Amino acid sequence: MAKKVSLKDIAQKAGVSIASVSYVLTKGNNSGVGPELSEKIKKIASELNYRPNQIAKSLQSGKSYSIGLIVADISNPFFANIARIIEDQAKKYNYTVIFGSSDEMASKSSDLITFFVNRQVDGFIIAPAEDSLEQIKALQKQNIPFVLIDRYFPEIDTNYVATDNFMATFKATNKLIESGNSEIGLIAYNSELYHMQERINGYCKAIEEAGCSPKKSNIKKIDFSSLKEQINKKVDELVLSDNPVSAILFATNTLALYGLKRIDALKLKVPDDVSVIVFDAAEAFDFYYCPLTYIKQPLFEIGTNAVDILVDQIDKPNKKLSQVCIKSTLVENESSK
Amino acid sequence: MAKKVSLKDIAQKAGVSIASVSYVLTKGNNSGVGPELSEKIKKIASELNYRPNQIAKSLQSGKSYSIGLIVADISNPFFANIARIIEDQAKKYNYTVIFGSSDEMASKSSDLITFFVNRQVDGFIIAPAEDSLEQIKALQKQNIPFVLIDRYFPEIDTNYVATDNFMATFKATNKLIESGNSEIGLIAYNSELYHMQERINGYCKAIEEAGCSPKKSNIKKIDFSSLKEQINKKVDELVLSDNPVSAILFATNTLALYGLKRIDALKLKVPDDVSVIVFDAAEAFDFYYCPLTYIKQPLFEIGTNAVDILVDQIDKPNKKLSQVCIKSTLVENESSK
Repeated sequence: MAKKVSLKDIAQKAGVSIASVSYVLTKGNNSGVGPELSEKIKKIASELNYRPNQIAKSLQSGKSYSIGLIVADISNPFFANIARIIEDQAKKYNYTVIFGSSDEMASKSSDLITFFVNRQVDGFIIAPAEDSLEQIKALQKQNIPFVLIDRYFPEIDTNYVATDNFMATFKATNKLIESGNSEIGLIAYNSELYHMQERINGYCKAIEEAGCSPKKSNIKKIDFSSLKEQINKKVDELVLSDNPVSAILFATNTLALYGLKRIDALKLKVPDDVSVIVFDAAEAFDFYYCPLTYIKQPLFEIGTNAVDILVDQIDKPNKKLSQVCIKSTLVENESSK
Repeated sequence: MAKKVSLKDIAQKAGVSIASVSYVLTKGNNSGVGPELSEKIKKIASELNYRPNQIAKSLQSGKSYSIGLIVADISNPFFANIARIIEDQAKKYNYTVIFGSSDEMASKSSDLITFFVNRQVDGFIIAPAEDSLEQIKALQKQNIPFVLIDRYFPEIDTNYVATDNFMATFKATNKLIESGNSEIGLIAYNSELYHMQERINGYCKAIEEAGCSPKKSNIKKIDFSSLKEQINKKVDELVLSDNPVSAILFATNTLALYGLKRIDALKLKVPDDVSVIVFDAAEAFDFYYCPLTYIKQPLFEIGTNAVDILVDQIDKPNKKLSQVCIKSTLVENESSK
């Protein structure tokens, strides 16, 4: 890197004291230095491409004006879209966003948190990975401001912004029941995370309210890290068994992406052979031959709320926690008929 | 935020001097402090949750160990995927990545560069927006290390990692000619950016080599900011004219996404009514009824090379510039038959 331009360099060129330069550049029009000399100093600073040292400023204010964003995977469209919204909102408050992907692994998430804390981020926005409860508790203990998004831990009191997962799958399952499906499959992740549990619970509740009991064999759980290896078998078990399902609810868009590819490979037609509802949209579904019914998540509200809450918490550490649950919408199309 | 734990807090609890604490925590086993006392100090530091002040460290080293990444739009899958690769590679060097989206606007790009420079990033990875040449020249003048990706400016000497855009569309157009198409349309962005010009040039060259001259009416240019408003008309002009094209080459995946929707709405069949090749892949195409021929870009190589070159340049400011052009591959499927 080039040698940084110092106050001394400017002072020498302007033929004034370092103190005068410092006053002019830090205090603007209240510097006590005459307007003509002020202008001269500012002009020289600009010519020399002087940049105030933000790191030194940060050291004084104790703030870095940066937010650490930890998601499962920045290349997943759900998180890429939220990241974009968070970026735009953070910039309104003059904050930069540093991001990292946990791949749903607690160890990676822990590394990222330490890495970002050591870089003095002012706070975090986190879609917490499985088994990361202790890390989140540790953040709390250190009084580092954070907001959880997409998922949260009901057993601890934190800021969070999430979707009403239970109601979303409850309504979606009801829709499939109303369309005349008596055997409805659910493909979800094998995860203790609250949002996934709630999606499963919403499905079960709808089936119970219809006077049936949810069958274990109709609920298929897939390991996040082995999605591509496991999905075909689980789809086959649902649609090719002796008592096949006539509808499938996919608990995420990635599960649906691979599940629908399998349904297509089996030459089954949506919705004639199997009805489908997907949690979350994806560009990929735009070209699916049968327009899909999906649960539309409020990405914009999640992202902007998370930033607003975090920035407020950074400025007011003793502020009451904010717990925001935003409703999602069932967008009805051909696939759930 | 909680009050930060200082060296003084640790010294008081351990009953030693601040100097001893500083030696132990900064110099490890070479501190000159006895092993027993060293252990005691480290234990207390850990109990108190002491974190070395990275900002203060940065002030000493002059490095922030952060990279500014500026792309057109982080929510575009092409850039989201590259961001993920850059994140993983940067972490290997202990760097964090701060990102921003320029929306292909020079003014936004300029704001982001200033914003990140003031936050003392050590260098930049930039997919430069149109008309941002002067900003890039200004970075050069300030000796701030940077690497351009995806696009670059042939008139200035910079680090860059890009695809061989000319050869990519040259080969793709040749493929369409070989398949018997005599009228081939090109839908590109209305942009002076070098990568877009080269994509257009490659198309023209292939048509010239086939003994024809490229027709202006077959080359449709769309404004980045008005894609959705302009695409239908441009597709219509190509396929519904008196002398319609029998094939279309789309210069980006987003252009293809909306162009194919129009082709579908017109009830034209790919490839029977119109053959198609797309620059770049996208998950969205997985469900397109006709498997698409596309130009596969070397995302992994672009991302990892960019980080390697940047980190090297940060450490060795006088290093020779690296200009890397990576070949793309034409993946042949049904749509170009």
